[in-house]
Amino acid sequence: MKERNDTVITCGSMSSVSPIPSYSPAAPPLPTPSQFSFSVASTRWSSRPPFQAANLFLRSLTLVFSFGSSLSLAAPSPAKTMFGKSPSFYNNTNLLYCFIVNILTFLYAAYQLFKGICDIAHKGVFISDAVSDYTSFIFDQLAGYLLISSSSVAVPVIQQMDHSTSLWKAATVSVCMSFAVFLIIAISALLSGYKFCKRIIW
Amino acid sequence: MKERNDTVITCGSMSSVSPIPSYSPAAPPLPTPSQFSFSVASTRWSSRPPFQAANLFLRSLTLVFSFGSSLSLAAPSPAKTMFGKSPSFYNNTNLLYCFIVNILTFLYAAYQLFKGICDIAHKGVFISDAVSDYTSFIFDQLAGYLLISSSSVAVPVIQQMDHSTSLWKAATVSVCMSFAVFLIIAISALLSGYKFCKRIIW
Repeated sequence: MKERNDTVITCGSMSSVSPIPSYSPAAPPLPTPSQFSFSVASTRWSSRPPFQAANLFLRSLTLVFSFGSSLSLAAPSPAKTMFGKSPSFYNNTNLLYCFIVNILTFLYAAYQLFKGICDIAHKGVFISDAVSDYTSFIFDQLAGYLLISSSSVAVPVIQQMDHSTSLWKAATVSVCMSFAVFLIIAISALLSGYKFCKRIIW
Repeated sequence: MKERNDTVITCGSMSSVSPIPSYSPAAPPLPTPSQFSFSVASTRWSSRPPFQAANLFLRSLTLVFSFGSSLSLAAPSPAKTMFGKSPSFYNNTNLLYCFIVNILTFLYAAYQLFKGICDIAHKGVFISDAVSDYTSFIFDQLAGYLLISSSSVAVPVIQQMDHSTSLWKAATVSVCMSFAVFLIIAISALLSGYKFCKRIIW
């Protein structure tokens, strides 16, 4: 009877040990991109917190600067044009292009920030990780190229403009912020490209 | 005795079961990337030929189009300006910017093509693979952003220009080719980014 008790105890100890690594059998159903799901899961979970923090920080910076860039163009112009005193950015296609790109970047940054916060609050509810990596990669690349294009186009417009108008100041601030957004999006694109590559390779 | 055998069997079955989820305890040592030098080597060698062929093709396309873009701006202008008939692109900073970026892209494409041919002829003599991956990644990103910026800047200049001048035709051809170079460089940047990520991850 004692021996049987011993064996029972050992069996019990084994079954009590097994729950400790039992989080890893729970890992395979999580993301499983390819055959090496176990290594992916462990690598991704370990590398996630710094990535998420950096991502959220960059997205919030993008949100702030793109909002500032759009606002500085939009805010002074309509009030002045009502009295017909200062030209509005609506009349200049290049500044309008810059404005639209910044608005789109703002919306995209808002979506990314919302998704990031959803991921922290309750993981994987809003959108799947795979789809998110693909879309982030594509849209970061697109946003980077559009931002550098629109900012570059606005620079000669500012040079030709009358420096005394309020639109000149607004456009200068807007373009500076737009360049800042471009730099932040370029770094975001590197991060999302790295995540995308990791998903492809594994 | 029978009962004791049973308990032994159950313990044995548990220990024989335990290897089945044992890939999960084996997971933690896996992600340490540096040890798996063999997997790196095998993957890199197997993925090399298609990469090299695609790379050479893209680099030669870049070379041709960036040369065409620079030539179409430079060729008609000096001959006409000697007689003071048509404005040169030298006088327009935006077109000059487009010209300089295309010349730089041409030189970079020539270097990449030369390196690619050197790699095929006798591997690894010209420059080491690691340095090449890093520089290619950085310069492809830079070239992509510079090209889209310079092409975008040139578009409003063309719109404002007199359509009857030879410079207008030259600039239009140049900008179209510059956009083509941008698209090719963007694809090259994706490929070099993928190679760069592979080198970082492993």
